[in-house]
This record gives sequence, C-alpha cells and structure tokens, in this order.
Amino acid sequence: MFTDTTFAVIGGDLRQAHLAGLLAADGLSVLTVGFERKIPISSDVLHVKNAAEAVERAHCVILPLPFTVDGSTVNAPFSRAPIPLQSIWEAADHDPLITGGMLSPDVVEAARTHGFRTVDYYAKEEMAVRNTVPTVEGALQIAFEELPITLHGTRCLVLGFGRVGRTLCRSLRGLGAEVTGCARSYDDLAWVRTLDCTPLRLDGLTGVAGRFDVVFNTIPARILTAELLTHLKKGCLVIDLASKPGGVDFDAAKQLGVKTVWALSLPGKVAPHTAGQIIKETVLHILEEEGLS
Amino acid sequence: MFTDTTFAVIGGDLRQAHLAGLLAADGLSVLTVGFERKIPISSDVLHVKNAAEAVERAHCVILPLPFTVDGSTVNAPFSRAPIPLQSIWEAADHDPLITGGMLSPDVVEAARTHGFRTVDYYAKEEMAVRNTVPTVEGALQIAFEELPITLHGTRCLVLGFGRVGRTLCRSLRGLGAEVTGCARSYDDLAWVRTLDCTPLRLDGLTGVAGRFDVVFNTIPARILTAELLTHLKKGCLVIDLASKPGGVDFDAAKQLGVKTVWALSLPGKVAPHTAGQIIKETVLHILEEEGLS
Amino acid sequence: MFTDTTFAVIGGDLRQAHLAGLLAADGLSVLTVGFERKIPISSDVLHVKNAAEAVERAHCVILPLPFTVDGSTVNAPFSRAPIPLQSIWEAADHDPLITGGMLSPDVVEAARTHGFRTVDYYAKEEMAVRNTVPTVEGALQIAFEELPITLHGTRCLVLGFGRVGRTLCRSLRGLGAEVTGCARSYDDLAWVRTLDCTPLRLDGLTGVAGRFDVVFNTIPARILTAELLTHLKKGCLVIDLASKPGGVDFDAAKQLGVKTVWALSLPGKVAPHTAGQIIKETVLHILEEEGLS
Amino acid sequence: MFTDTTFAVIGGDLRQAHLAGLLAADGLSVLTVGFERKIPISSDVLHVKNAAEAVERAHCVILPLPFTVDGSTVNAPFSRAPIPLQSIWEAADHDPLITGGMLSPDVVEAARTHGFRTVDYYAKEEMAVRNTVPTVEGALQIAFEELPITLHGTRCLVLGFGRVGRTLCRSLRGLGAEVTGCARSYDDLAWVRTLDCTPLRLDGLTGVAGRFDVVFNTIPARILTAELLTHLKKGCLVIDLASKPGGVDFDAAKQLGVKTVWALSLPGKVAPHTAGQIIKETVLHILEEEGLS
Repeated sequence: MFTDTTFAVIGGDLRQAHLAGLLAADGLSVLTVGFERKIPISSDVLHVKNAAEAVERAHCVILPLPFTVDGSTVNAPFSRAPIPLQSIWEAADHDPLITGGMLSPDVVEAARTHGFRTVDYYAKEEMAVRNTVPTVEGALQIAFEELPITLHGTRCLVLGFGRVGRTLCRSLRGLGAEVTGCARSYDDLAWVRTLDCTPLRLDGLTGVAGRFDVVFNTIPARILTAELLTHLKKGCLVIDLASKPGGVDFDAAKQLGVKTVWALSLPGKVAPHTAGQIIKETVLHILEEEGLS
Repeated sequence: MFTDTTFAVIGGDLRQAHLAGLLAADGLSVLTVGFERKIPISSDVLHVKNAAEAVERAHCVILPLPFTVDGSTVNAPFSRAPIPLQSIWEAADHDPLITGGMLSPDVVEAARTHGFRTVDYYAKEEMAVRNTVPTVEGALQIAFEELPITLHGTRCLVLGFGRVGRTLCRSLRGLGAEVTGCARSYDDLAWVRTLDCTPLRLDGLTGVAGRFDVVFNTIPARILTAELLTHLKKGCLVIDLASKPGGVDFDAAKQLGVKTVWALSLPGKVAPHTAGQIIKETVLHILEEEGLS
Repeated sequence: MFTDTTFAVIGGDLRQAHLAGLLAADGLSVLTVGFERKIPISSDVLHVKNAAEAVERAHCVILPLPFTVDGSTVNAPFSRAPIPLQSIWEAADHDPLITGGMLSPDVVEAARTHGFRTVDYYAKEEMAVRNTVPTVEGALQIAFEELPITLHGTRCLVLGFGRVGRTLCRSLRGLGAEVTGCARSYDDLAWVRTLDCTPLRLDGLTGVAGRFDVVFNTIPARILTAELLTHLKKGCLVIDLASKPGGVDFDAAKQLGVKTVWALSLPGKVAPHTAGQIIKETVLHILEEEGLS
Repeated sequence: MFTDTTFAVIGGDLRQAHLAGLLAADGLSVLTVGFERKIPISSDVLHVKNAAEAVERAHCVILPLPFTVDGSTVNAPFSRAPIPLQSIWEAADHDPLITGGMLSPDVVEAARTHGFRTVDYYAKEEMAVRNTVPTVEGALQIAFEELPITLHGTRCLVLGFGRVGRTLCRSLRGLGAEVTGCARSYDDLAWVRTLDCTPLRLDGLTGVAGRFDVVFNTIPARILTAELLTHLKKGCLVIDLASKPGGVDFDAAKQLGVKTVWALSLPGKVAPHTAGQIIKETVLHILEEEGLS
C-alpha cells in the first residue's frame, strides 16, 4: 500500500530529515524542501526547488512540529530561504492531505478556501503515547547527568499520572528506583499501585516532599510553588517535563538553590530518528484512515 | 477519620468476610449479618440477629458483589436464613449510605422512597483497576495449571487492551513470556508497544493465530469464532476472561478439541482477602467523597 | 549436525516422552523403550522391543532423571516390564555415549567394564540454571493456589540466593511482590540489592521473621526450625524447594499449624514439555563437547 | 557498633569525599587529609594537617581507588601537597587496618615491616557486584547521549556475561530494549535465557554482527577486531566497558568510522555519592570480618 503516494516533507529539523529518509527507505516517493543547510539526510529523497512545486506533486504534505513559529512561514531552521505558508496553501488546490504538528485555526480556514484536507498528527493519541518513550528516556538522561547518585535505589517522585507519568513510572521501576506516583484521583492512584509504585495523593504532598532525591513533574500547572520547594530535601533535583508555563516557580527555585531542569520537546532532541519514525507511522495511519492508502 | 462510623456488612462470601475483618482491624465498628454457616471471620466483628437491626445502627451498609442474585434477597450463601432486600430498605430511613456491587435501578428507586443514598462500588474506576491484579494472577494460575510448558519464553496472545489487558501484558512480560497485544485501534497498539509487547491489529489476527501457545481473551465479544479456532496451533490453550456471553464459541471449541477455560469473577475466588481489601478501600474512598468521613 | 546420530530414549515419565518427541521433531532418529502404558508420545519415534536392541543401534542413550530408583532397573513408570540396567550396560560395547540424571558410581564402573562413555546431564550447570525457570513457575503456582492474597504487594521472603533463589527473586519482583532475599554472605546480599530486593543476613532472620506473608526456602539445611516457625506471622505460607531432607521441621510446622508445602522435582511435574526441552538441549551440547556432533 | 572506631580518609576524589561525609553522617569519627583544594566535603569531618597524624589516631585508614598512581604518593588530586605513602606506613605501627583499592605487593610488604593489616576493598566480590549498578547507569547515559534512537525497541548486543554483563542485560530489558547476550559457554547462555535475552555463542558473532544498533563490550580481550568491526551496521555505536587494553581495535574503529566510546571507572564519574557509599559499606563489612566492630 501507499506505493503510488508521493510525499512532500517541507521544513523541520533533524527529526523531519529522519522522517523523510524513513519514508524513502520504505520505497515511497519523497520530495523535500528546506534542508539545504548542513543537515544529514538520505540520498533517496528528491530535493525540489520550492514548496509550491513539492506541494503540487504530492498526495500528502508533511509539515514539521510545530508547523510554524512565526505564524507566516514554515518552521524550517535548515532552509536557506524562508518558506511562506501562503505558498503552500496556494499550491494545494488538488485536494492533497496536509498534515503537521500543532496546526492552528488559520490552517483549517486556509484548507476550506484552497480545497485541501488537514490533520494534525500531534493531536493523535497514538503519537502522544509513543512519544512518551523518547520523552522518558530524555528525562532519564538528564537525571543520569545531573545526579551524583544512581537512579537504582533512589527515591523518585513522579507528579502526575497521565501518559508521560505512566511510562516514566515504569521505566524508573525498570531501573530499580523507588517510585512514588502522585496524583489527584484515587483512580489514577489505583494505576500507580498496579505499577508497583507507592501512591500519594496530591493534597498530601507537602508533608512528605522532603523524602525524595529527584522530582519529575508532568503536571502542566504550578505545583512546585515557592512554598513547596522549601520542603524539598537539600540537593533534590527537579526535572520539569510540563509544557509552558511549566510546573515550577523557577524564580523561587533559583533563589532557594533548588537545581531545576525544564526539559521540553525531548523526543526531537534526544532521539530524532525515533521521533521521525513515530511521525512517519502516525502519518501513514492517518492516510489509512483518510482512505488514501 | 471514620472513627465514629458504624459499618454493616450484610451477606456475601469469603471476600465480604475478609472485608468485615479488615474494617474491624482498622478499629472500626462492624456489624455483620449472614455469616452464620461455616466461614472463618474475625472475632472483632459483632454478629447481629437480623439485617434490620444492623442497618438501623449503621452509617454505611455494605452489600456483596453482586448484591443480589434472585432480585429479592441479598446474595448471602453463608446465611442460615434468606435476607430480604425489602427488610434492608425499610430499616434505612435515617439516611445511611448503602453501597453494593452491580446495584440495579430498583435499588435507586428504593433509595428515593426510603431516604437513603446509594453508591455502586463495582462501578468505581478505582475498583476496576485494582481488581485487574487478582484477575491477572488468577489467569496466570490457570495457565500454570493447564500448560505443559513454562510461561517464560512462551508465545502469548492477549486479546484486548483495556484494564485487564494492560495488567496482563505487564505481568506476562514480568515472567518472561513473549507477548503479542491485539487491539482494534492504533492508540491501544501504541500502548502495547510501550509495554514491550508486539502490536497486532485485530483485523490481522486470523493470519497469525497459529503462532501462539496460549490465548488470553479480554474482549467481551465473540472474537474466537469457530473459524478462528481452526487456525490455532494444536495444543493452544484459550483462557477467556470476558464476562458473559464470553469471547469464545465454546461449542466449536469443544468439537475442535481446543482446550478452553472460561474464568469469571477471579478476584473473589483466587484472592478473597485481597478482593475484600480492595472493596474496603474503595468504600472508604466513597465515604470520603460523600462527606461521611 | 547430528543428522546421522541415533538416539535411544529409555524409560522415564512425561518429560522423557516430550524429550523423545522433540528430538524426533528436529529430524533425528529416535528409538524408545518403556513408554508402552498410557502416555502420549510423538508418532515420529520408533518404539523398539527391548532396551538391548535400542542401545545397540544408538550413538547416544538417554536415561531418565533420576536414571534409577531401585538401583537395578531403569526408572520407567510407563514401561510394561522392568528394564534391567544390566541389559543396557551389556549392549553398550560399541562405545556409545550414555547420559542420564543423577548417575551413580556404579554406572561409571559399568562404563569402564563395558566400554561406553557416560555424562550426567543433571550435573551440568546449564541444566541447573535453565531448570530454575520451571521450578520457580511451579513455586508461583503453589503460592497462587494456597494464598488468599495476590503475590502483587505481598511480603515474600526468599531464603538462599543460589540459582533458584535468583530466578525466584526476579520473578516475584516481576509480579510486583515485595521481596526480601536472605543469605549468609555479603556477596550474595550485594546481588540481592542489584535485583531490587531487600537484603537480609541469615543471622538476623529471627528478629524479622514475623513480617512475611510467604516464605520460599531454597537452602538445603534445616533453617526453619521449630523455634523459627514460632516467629512466623499467623497464616504465613511456607514453600520449601530444598531437596531432601528439606529446610523445614515439618513435624513442628504441623504442630504449630504452619501451612507448609514441600515441593520437589517441580520441572517434570509442572512443565514436562519445557523440562524435556531443557534435557534435549543439554544433551545436544554434551554431544557437541564429546565430539559426537 | 563501630562507635569507638576512628577512620582516616586520606586522598582520593569526589567519591572519597562522599565516603568521608557518609561515615561522619553515621556518627563515626572521621579524620581527613588531602581535600584542601576545591571539593565539597561534609563539615562533620575533621581535617588534620598531615597523613602521619591521621594514621596515628585511626583504627582504620581508607586509601583511594586506586590507592596510588605513581607508586610513591597517595592518589590525591585534591591535596595541596603530595602525600608520601612512606609517611603512612611509618605512622602505622599500632596495628591499624589499612584498606585501599588495587593495593600492590609493596603494601603487603610494608604491612609486614611496620605492623599493620591490609585489605583491598576493590578485590571484594561485594564491591564488584554493587559497582555494576553505577557502571551500567553510566553506560546507559552514554548510549542516551550518543544514539539518535531510544534504547526502547533497540537491538543491543552485550558481549560477556560476567557481573557487569548481567546487570546490563537486566537494565536494558527494564528499558524495553531487545537484548542479545553473547558469551562463550552454554552455562552463561543459560543465564542469558533466564533474563529474557537472546543467547548468542561468541563463535557465531561474526555472522549476525550486522543486526545491532549498539554494542556493549564487557570482555577484557580484543573481541572487536578490525575484521568484526567491518561487519557492524552503519551507525552502530560501540561502548567498551572493558578495562585496559579494552576490547576494541580503536585504530581500526577510527579508520572505519565506527563511533566508539571507551568508558572506564564509571562509578566514580557518574555517581560519586553512590560509589562512596559502596566503598563505605564494603569497608564496614571488612572491619566486621576483621573483628574490629
């Protein structure tokens, strides 16, 4: 399947370069734009001059994650010239599928005007779940680099038991850490127990905060307030995996001398090949769902 | 907390007897009815003569799982005399909380008439999650008893990736089995992969069904049809954990000589103490939510 | 390799029947003696009339584990007639390899007289290591059957950290049990720690013996004396995996009401197919070492 | 126990500084020499002017690992002045215990002359086993830093199944890697199988070397020859944990463009606190064995 499908991979970083190479390695036709500057990329892809040409020839256009930073051009750090989003929309009147990460309402509007379909791959549960693995490995790498102790035998606190929290708890247990999983609901805490971790209700956190050698936060809310930070053990490391605005009062942490690492977008940074593969598979499943395979 | 709360545990099997003993071991007042016949029960509980008396004195009445089998009396296999549900409802006009498993609409109606509150503990996510552990250990016990091979190194298929499927996949991996997790959606299959199991889409099952030494079904639908059963490897064991009507064409299995074990209600059977503890904790959390603690 | 090798499988139980079938399934010539009574065996093996004929035609003779019970005949519970050991030795003057389990000095003497080679497969480290897996699964099965609680979350004590102790600790941790590993030396306790179990020195056992829900003994010495048994928690289950004379004062246990299961020779009982496979692979490696492949 | 024991910690790096602090935190008397330059150390230790004074007052003298680099002074990178070994031996005529890492025959000779006892803590099995944990976490950190893929799902080869090999296999499996364990003997390969890894005989390595994404070597012999390196997959990372001369033909690796990291003495580098703790506990056990507690 997909043998007659042509893909255009436009812009992005190392992750998208890997994605392009992986699609080509599957024997698919891949056109790329925006990888002119020093970035290793498979020789099986076909570099084309401009986005318009790539879009016109493609059944599926893959934009990066996030698809734009400035709102008007594609997020393309390795491109020699800026790639206006408008040039893509205008070339997309043959009903291609345009997929990207964190698509904004503007794109949906453009799709209606120009006659293409859009799907946000970053909004797919499948991608979110699979991204937990490189995210967690990135968090472990930070812990290894920053801590003077092994994770094995160390008291870890994981705040939040969403997707990342689950995978993190499992991996920490896999390395022999003592893990406490902290969440609001008894339902989440029931899962914490089945994973052989110690359950802790969020409202009881302050009283035991001093026990931990490292705190991983996955809750996108200001949980680690100045007040709470004062209760941490001396030397405790805080790794914040929550998206903006983050879960830590960073100013207070600095003042109190609490070492804090705010780690965002780990998959693309620590495992760009795996991250590219995850996007690839998610996009292929989207095509299947859209009847394009 | 709960120090002034009186509990009435009415009817049920070994699991409810353990539950009564565990509440009493926490220092709580526990009245019991319906454990007159040979069943070991803690000496710290107070047996009362009839359900009416117990209900009148209780802040929280705990009925078994399921609360009734015949629709008119409490499910009380160790009681000398039948305990009419009506006698409970009538004694419950002081606004107690009545909790039980698989409560029917009748009970909600009775609650409105007689002025008590009801909560079905079996409907609580927390309980469902925690029950996955004894359910899975029961399934492992069956596999150990029935198979001439070790689970370690054995090819296992887990059909369905709901709560039980997740815990089952983890435990099988923990014992060194090779596990394939089969589900409909790519989202579930993404979780299968993070658990180090091999993902398999349900629509591709027939083609590879012959690879497995044991199949665990958790999908409450007739997945293992006569047709599919013919594709299983000779000697493959099928353990069906799905509630009625089960996931296996049992007649076809019998005719084809496929060994099948349909295992229901495992927690109460294989680990009544743990099962009682799970109900206890779920009920205490319900009391907390209801403001009764 | 082995394509021209003829094997004689003489006597034994279900495990040897599986062994014979597995060798045949590899395309090897297999002669069997002593499986005349109701026992399922592969149709690819060739039953011969008497042991002498089998031995004469074989390059490798495989006797059961143990090879004899009475000292004069092969241990052959499924044979119609007794198979005198002498008849085997006498037919073995063409320098075959005779391998069996728990070979006695008599056999080595017979080998010298009659001109055959002997290797005891049960004395092979490889076999001892691999047998830990079915042994441990058998122990888990007993725990599942006997305990009213799940192993998950349960306090387990493993006495001894030899081969079985190691695999047992890992499997119990894989199921989410809390495991204490008890041994004499700090070297063994160092391994206990790397396996995420709690180390306990044997000389400190008495003081903490009351903490555990289940005790697995692997030390072949009377560790669980009457005195120590009195310190166990009420309801604690003891599973003794140590060979004769066992590690428990069974009389005292009976008097004290401590439930004890003495489980010997588990591989052949709980997983005869896997046990047969382990013997098969060990024997093939012996042949390789002996230059017979 | 140990309450009247005075310790002298002389020389060493961060690891010994942590060791001194940990002993002091246990309430023991700790004299230190050689930590005058910028190195964080507990304020509970007593810095003394010179080694002679410390040794005279101590029951147990702890030298670093290795105890010397040049053969004549203590390995003391944070000392302002060199600390001659001779000054220690001469002050040790009151029968103290002198323990250090990688003690040479000279020390034993000095002990005889001057009347002190020596034990090499680095030669203790306990220490070797426990050090596998920080060694393995250091190896994982390198893999995380160097690879563009996650370890989860990655094909890893572990060469050698000694202490480090065992812990490495377990940790990699704990992170969801696919692990092949390569060893010479069937005995070791039997352990590889019980750890849920794929066994591979060393003599079959060349044929399958191209399958792996990362190779961890623990065998202290030139296994990864130029010839073998040519068989590795493009982009395969080699992490060599073997002590000098290492297991890789580093020149050939460079020429062939095989990325190789030779990682030695990881515990002190990646987890100095844990490494100090391991030395502390090993030394206390040595004192116990020597009847000094």
